[in-house]
Amino acid sequence: MKLGRTRSVTPDGTVTRIVVADEAEVWFDVRRAERLRLERAGATTPAASRVAAALVPGSLSDALAAGDAFLDAARAAIGADDARIEAVELTNALDPSAYRDYMVFEEHFSFGYRWQGRPVPDVLYELPIAYLGNPASFLGPEDTIPWPHYTERLDYELELGIVIGRAGTQLTPEEAIKHVVGLTILNDVSARDIQAREMTGNLGPCKGKHFACVTGPYVTTLDGLPWESGLRMQARVNGETWCDANSSEAIWSVGELVAWASQGEFLQPGQLLGTGTCNGGSTIELGRTLSPADRLEFEIEGLGTLANTIGDRADGGWWPQARQPSRVPDLSA
Amino acid sequence: MKLGRTRSVTPDGTVTRIVVADEAEVWFDVRRAERLRLERAGATTPAASRVAAALVPGSLSDALAAGDAFLDAARAAIGADDARIEAVELTNALDPSAYRDYMVFEEHFSFGYRWQGRPVPDVLYELPIAYLGNPASFLGPEDTIPWPHYTERLDYELELGIVIGRAGTQLTPEEAIKHVVGLTILNDVSARDIQAREMTGNLGPCKGKHFACVTGPYVTTLDGLPWESGLRMQARVNGETWCDANSSEAIWSVGELVAWASQGEFLQPGQLLGTGTCNGGSTIELGRTLSPADRLEFEIEGLGTLANTIGDRADGGWWPQARQPSRVPDLSA
Repeated sequence: MKLGRTRSVTPDGTVTRIVVADEAEVWFDVRRAERLRLERAGATTPAASRVAAALVPGSLSDALAAGDAFLDAARAAIGADDARIEAVELTNALDPSAYRDYMVFEEHFSFGYRWQGRPVPDVLYELPIAYLGNPASFLGPEDTIPWPHYTERLDYELELGIVIGRAGTQLTPEEAIKHVVGLTILNDVSARDIQAREMTGNLGPCKGKHFACVTGPYVTTLDGLPWESGLRMQARVNGETWCDANSSEAIWSVGELVAWASQGEFLQPGQLLGTGTCNGGSTIELGRTLSPADRLEFEIEGLGTLANTIGDRADGGWWPQARQPSRVPDLSA
Repeated sequence: MKLGRTRSVTPDGTVTRIVVADEAEVWFDVRRAERLRLERAGATTPAASRVAAALVPGSLSDALAAGDAFLDAARAAIGADDARIEAVELTNALDPSAYRDYMVFEEHFSFGYRWQGRPVPDVLYELPIAYLGNPASFLGPEDTIPWPHYTERLDYELELGIVIGRAGTQLTPEEAIKHVVGLTILNDVSARDIQAREMTGNLGPCKGKHFACVTGPYVTTLDGLPWESGLRMQARVNGETWCDANSSEAIWSVGELVAWASQGEFLQPGQLLGTGTCNGGSTIELGRTLSPADRLEFEIEGLGTLANTIGDRADGGWWPQARQPSRVPDLSA
């Protein structure tokens, strides 16, 4: 099953609607199908609309939080001819409730540390290492990727996105996989110059990451995917293939990443976990660069193709003025 | 004006209610006051309840997102005798929509880098440096602070919390301050051993931070605070003063921190920005440690006192098995 979203113009502005498809990629509007199903079971139209709106909101994170009640309604919508959409235009499938990005592809991260002039730290082989990203920054298919004023070096990162469907904590990898509803393509857009600069502060990336991420075109549920044996991951720029990798090259499994995320914390429905860049999945390791108007196409086996165009660099913006260090007393002395 | 929250038991479980007080700390239930105001203006009780519930939800982040309409209702509730609460028990005031923590106190961060065996990076004086934390981990007054299974070294961090009241982007410091609704006490609870270990991976802290944060007991709006000249910040452990600092020691101003957060991103109402630990505001720089059952009291001028007890260390939990590094090809060669 594939879960996506479309936009719809209403008197109160543009709203999003959750849509569903099977392998045939014929799309159905889930809320409409559920309303019609309720009406056939005796509900009045206003009551059916009210209940269907509560069960199938515009946010996929909010919908996933309803658990099997939502997933059953989505499955039941497939094939409902009176809720079929003729020419679907998919927007960002997932408005994540939270976002965490790991770093699990060894060729990529080994290059990344060399690029920063550092050896690969031992901890990369001891623990899945992550940072928390900005869940409010997510874009979808065909959205223009913004180029912030504070960077000259915009980059993409081709990643596998893991979508949590069920709350949980303190899970083992075997338990954790039951909390994953599906997978999606993820582009963890990066501003390399400010990222490298702020990471010398050792709190991780912030401005280098939090301005934009892209997912989509839909979330494919695990049951329809050969995810355990690895999914082919490709990036094309202006029609030329720049990356052709496989998710099986990850040094931690999907179950291990989710299990580690759940230690001491509560997984939330709609939470997105990125694997980090696949091997060869960004421009820095290729010695290439991106420019405004470049066309990106990311394709992952079973997850479709996610296409975006790079926008023009923003003007203006505020920049802090440097401080002078004081002669700080040595509190440890 | 002080904005807080209380708990109320209903047939559908425990819910939170937003409450308000002025300097006298006499508390009023904002939704009840708004419902009664609407009824006096001709609304039926069901309609007044519906409108008041929409304007004054249980989440302070959701309420702040309604802008001046909510803040006006909160101000109007002060002194509404029929909405007065006799014996208030405040719970966590803020369920932040997002959380970012800076590092702006020089004595603290200088010690922190020495503790990690590293020089203070230049970037700390060039940019306000932050990481994104877990907005789902927030606790309030008198909640027990959890001790995760994966750490032996729990610590507190006494910080000033900056609460965003109004959406915005690309702001200057002068503009940014108008997007701040108020300040609160913040304890960015930390697990030092896992934090130090994972930070060698250079993506910042994750498991060392994301299990718990504490704010409260309330959010004080800027208009009632001498915040520009600095607020006294104190931490007591089991009744003994371990920290006595001042917010004026920060090397970046509140306006600068918010302005930098807004570059290339959108501030959201209910978003919380921490200043990072004030000078002397954690146990590592004191050479002291915490134990289960220790009693913490954080006090900041104008922001009240936030008291919590340290819980027992959790049992069990899953831990990843280390990988062997491969002989990774040098992609840059």
